[in-house]
Order: sequence, then C-alpha cells, then structure tokens
Amino acid sequence: MLQLYFTPGPSAIYPTVNLHIKEALRKGYLSDSHRSATFKGIYKETEDNLRMLLGIPDNFSILFTSSANEIWERLVQNTVGKKSLHLVNGAFSKRFAEIAAEYGKETIIYNAEEGSVVSPDTIKADNEVELVAITHNETSTGVSQPIEDIISIRKKFPQALIAVDAVSSLPIVELPYDQIDSAYFSVQKCFGLPAGLGVWIVNDRCIKKAEELESKKIITGSYHKLLAMAKKAEDHQTIETPNVLGIYLLGKVVGDMLNKGIGQIRNETLYKAGVLYYGLQTHPLLNPFVKNEKLRSNTVCIFETNDKSIEIINFLKAKSMVIGSGYGSFKNNHIRIANFPATGKEQIEMLTDKLNDFQ
Amino acid sequence: MLQLYFTPGPSAIYPTVNLHIKEALRKGYLSDSHRSATFKGIYKETEDNLRMLLGIPDNFSILFTSSANEIWERLVQNTVGKKSLHLVNGAFSKRFAEIAAEYGKETIIYNAEEGSVVSPDTIKADNEVELVAITHNETSTGVSQPIEDIISIRKKFPQALIAVDAVSSLPIVELPYDQIDSAYFSVQKCFGLPAGLGVWIVNDRCIKKAEELESKKIITGSYHKLLAMAKKAEDHQTIETPNVLGIYLLGKVVGDMLNKGIGQIRNETLYKAGVLYYGLQTHPLLNPFVKNEKLRSNTVCIFETNDKSIEIINFLKAKSMVIGSGYGSFKNNHIRIANFPATGKEQIEMLTDKLNDFQ
Repeated sequence: MLQLYFTPGPSAIYPTVNLHIKEALRKGYLSDSHRSATFKGIYKETEDNLRMLLGIPDNFSILFTSSANEIWERLVQNTVGKKSLHLVNGAFSKRFAEIAAEYGKETIIYNAEEGSVVSPDTIKADNEVELVAITHNETSTGVSQPIEDIISIRKKFPQALIAVDAVSSLPIVELPYDQIDSAYFSVQKCFGLPAGLGVWIVNDRCIKKAEELESKKIITGSYHKLLAMAKKAEDHQTIETPNVLGIYLLGKVVGDMLNKGIGQIRNETLYKAGVLYYGLQTHPLLNPFVKNEKLRSNTVCIFETNDKSIEIINFLKAKSMVIGSGYGSFKNNHIRIANFPATGKEQIEMLTDKLNDFQ
Repeated sequence: MLQLYFTPGPSAIYPTVNLHIKEALRKGYLSDSHRSATFKGIYKETEDNLRMLLGIPDNFSILFTSSANEIWERLVQNTVGKKSLHLVNGAFSKRFAEIAAEYGKETIIYNAEEGSVVSPDTIKADNEVELVAITHNETSTGVSQPIEDIISIRKKFPQALIAVDAVSSLPIVELPYDQIDSAYFSVQKCFGLPAGLGVWIVNDRCIKKAEELESKKIITGSYHKLLAMAKKAEDHQTIETPNVLGIYLLGKVVGDMLNKGIGQIRNETLYKAGVLYYGLQTHPLLNPFVKNEKLRSNTVCIFETNDKSIEIINFLKAKSMVIGSGYGSFKNNHIRIANFPATGKEQIEMLTDKLNDFQ
C-alpha cells in the first residue's frame, strides 16, 4: 500500500526521481567509467546547477563525500591543527565536536539548552580557534540558528574558518557565503534523494588552511584529503569511483528545482511550516518543542507529545502516513515531521488534519 | 541506442537491477529511517545472502563503506600501529601502500614486474609487520595472485593480519577465509551494481587489533572506526545514514546469484574467459598482457594492442560495444575487458568475434 513519508531523513523521494533513475539506466550512465567524458559531464551539470540554485560563489569548490559524517571528519582532518569551537544545540552538533576530539583536537564547546541555540553574545573571542562549527538546522531538536548569529560570530572570529551544517536546511536557507568558509548537506533530506551522498561546499581559505597543515606534516587523511579532492574536482572528477547515480540524480533534481524556481520552493516551505505550526496550535496534546518562534526550523518541525509519540505514530501509520519519532532521549516524547520540497502542500494539510483528529 | 558494456568498473548492470530498483521505490524503502526495523531487515538479508554466497565464517563481520578506497584507509587506521607490508602488482596495490604512508606508517613494499605478481619466496619474514596487503586481482594489470601464494604468506607471517583486495574478483574467487583476516570488494565490479558501496569483510583478529591500538591511544578514525562499525553491525545498523539503495540492491542481486548457483556462475566465468583468451589467440595485434597463464585474471582480461587501443575502442563503440582503455601509462597500449557475471556468454562470444574482425 502506498505510504506518504514525512520522515526527516531518509525522506520522501522527490517526485521526479523515478523518471531520472530510469533515464540513467537506459542511457548506460551507471556502466560508464568515472574517468569518461560522460561522467565529467554529469559532475559538471550537478555542480553548475547547485551553484545556480544556491548562489555559490566561484571561490568555493563543490565536493562529493559519502555522508555528512564524513564531511565532519574531513573538516577536522583538513582545517584544524589544534583547536575547534562548537556551538552545540543537539545530537548532531555534539557529534561533530566528538569527532574533533577523536582526532585529538582541543574542542571548545558551548552548549545550548535543548530546543534553543547558543547566543553569540555568550561566546568568548579566541584567536587560537581555527574552526567554528555552527549547525544551522538541528535535525534532532528542530532548532534553527538565525543567520544574523552567523554574521555576529564571523565578526568575533575573523581569522577562523566558519563551517555551517545545513544538512537538513539547504536549499531552503539562503546562506551568507561571503561570511562563511564551508557549508554542507546530505541529499536524503531536502533534496529528496536516496541516501549515500554528502555535498561539501568549501572555499579557498579552507584549501589554504589544508595546505598549511600539510606543510607542517600534519596528517590530513589519504584518498579524501581536501587538497586532492579539490584538485580532482577542477577537472570534474572524484578520487575514487563515486556514487555516480547519486551525483546524477542530484544534478537532475536540482535542475527540476531551478525550473520550479527557488523562490517558489522557499515560499511553499514557509507556507507548509505555517500550516503545521499554526494548524496544530490548539491541539490538546501537541506543542512545538522550540518555544521561541524565531528559532523554529521550517524544514524539521518537532512537537512534544505528552509521551504519546508511539500512539500518534501508529495512528498515522494506519492511515498510511509515516512520520519520525523523537531523536535519542526524546524518542517517546517528540514527533519529527519533515517539511521538505518533495512533500506537497496538500499532504502537509492532510497530515495536520489527521493530527488534529488524534486527541 | 542500447550499448553493451564490458567496462571494468563501473560495469554492466546485473540484469535484475532495474526490477529491484523499481521494487525499492514502490515499497518506500528509500524513505524509511535507517534506524527502522525495515532497514535492519535489509541489512540482515544482504549480510545473510553474502555469507551464504561467499562462505564467510561467523567470526567475520560484514561492514559497509563508500568505496574500496575507504576500506584501505580504515584498514590502515585500525590495524596498523607502525608497519605494514604490501605486495604491489599494479596501480591499486600501490595506492594502498601510499595510503599507509600518508598515515605515517612504515611501509615495506615488494614490487612485481607489471603483469606479474610478487613471489612469496622473495618475501622476508618480519615479525614487526602488523598487516600484509595482498591484491588478489589487480584491476589495472589483469594479474591474479594464486590462492596458494596467500597460504604461503600466511605461514611466513603467522602474527600479522592478512588483508586481501578482491575488489574485482569476488564472488568469482573462493577465498580461504581461515587463512586470512580481511577481504573486501566494490559492488560496481563483479556484482554489476551502481557504484558507491564497498564491502569490508573483517574477522575478530582485526577487531582485537583495533582494540589494542585504541588502548594505546592511537587514533583509529572517528565515525567509521572499526570498533564502532562492528558494534553497530551486530544490530544490523550503520553509524551514518548509509547508501540504503546500494545495500538493498546488493542483497537482492546476491539472492539472484544464490538462486542461479555460485558454481554455475564461476563455471560460466571460466568459460567466458576461455572464449576471450583462446578466441583471440591468433589475433595479429592482440596479446594477453599477462604472459603466465596461471596468473591471468578471469574477471579482468587485459590485452596489449600494439598501440591501437583507441582505434579498437572506437571500432567497437561504432558497434555499440564499450570496453575499457588501458590503465594509467598503458592507456594507449592495453584494452581492458570485464568478464563479470552480468555479461552473458553470447555477449563475450560476440565481442570476441568483433575483435577478430579488427585486424
């Protein structure tokens, strides 16, 4: 039976994906060498489309990894000699800090209360910090760090590199690329694609930093060293045989998004988030976990359930709708609803109605 | 126009893949959480099928990475404190040794002449060696290290871990799992699947070694530390959101191979290799690059072309057949033909006929 997915990653598949997969199979793209002109063309199309959709400046490279987890590791290996600073507002930002520690880096951690963000005012300037890690959209708690906070942090850390985790918010968020040095996302969130591909957007300052670390004989990795990846990317190639299908599908779906218009997609997302947050306002059991409206994510909407998560999830499942449970310790007291571009307005309206039926 | 692919990776897609992709999309498997029972079931089916097809004993874990490149890196990080030994018989075995050096390990390298293998007799025993890296099937030169050599090396290095690169030979090769500690392959070779997934088969001795390194505070990685991966695998999960489609398709195609019978698949491969090597015996231009028949790969068949590679490739391309060029410096003087299970006997016979038409 056909189910509607509102899961926060892996997520509902973008409506055009089936057709693009068939085309890739029909044209033999999955059997062509990753050194062929065909593959370079696929890489180039995906890169060009992403640059256009997201407005990425020319001083940024676009690199492909297997996951955002890998991007955390490569950022640590390639941009931190000794010290990184982490704004922790949930499980994923915490994990990034742990990865830095696992590689022996000194990590300065600012913790936000769950459901909130670290206020830039509380962060002490420190010119030894090499990387500041900010999670724009925390998939675990549904909290979103305002863009103006990123700009304040930039002012406080002019020397450091700033990396923005936009795993579950790109392409909905408009990032200030002139104020940051790296951003990254996973394709199984807002892009509605099969999981197994991370996209790492990285500027010339990061590359310079990796060069500096290498010149100091610091180990920056092996096959996925930033310098080696960036060099191959100039020729629209990857080091290893990559997830060709993933790169192809991303390019095609981004192409579809360009046709639809990013403004339209962002407006629809806001509208759908409004339907959810305002449509459930009077629900006797559900309350948005993030109390401050300014910090509420538009793409991952999280509600407290008065410990009724399992009942709600099963109630919806019986109606062929799949939502996410709470993350980690919130498993039984939260529900997580993905509000990604693959999900239409009518679906979000129907979900809101059904949730209102559960009392 | 439909083309026949004889490319050595990415390669011809296994005939059932289209149907399995449709089923995965129809059933919503790509939108389900990677923490769900659905995903655990997918992981378990793939693992169980692989164990049965390859005869993998219970003391081995089966782990998923993004590529064989990543497996090289994870082996170095997790099983080598100081010193590894590498039998180098082509570009890929050489690259593994380079990765060990990039992580600051002392690498002992035995080089074979191109088109041949390192004879175990020439290797000096050394009880400081922690990992011996053997490439069973060199995709760059089409040379195959005999299994009896692996057994001789085991005797010479009883303490060391032995890792076998079977990237382009599993499931065709029957590996002596009681004589080795790790083996690995990529799905885009003999399994005929879309690229973007590596399979790492790793025993309890490797895990014990990783524990030993961690207890010595040696950095073994972060999200893909061997110990963390192996622990998650016990529960049929991965650390990160993985390439779910890749894991699903692998399980299904291995299921199809089990239905056909591994004996049948191996016999057909031998037959098809025979058609190629013997069918081109009297060709005025083509000669097998590997002179010693005992060392010739059955899965990646490489021929010298008297510098006519480009002409031959274009000649076949005009007939809708795609083969691989030579690797690296052999680009213009070799052709590489994948003889993987996705390719039928009739196709190899037709290719051999067409090659004989080129004089």
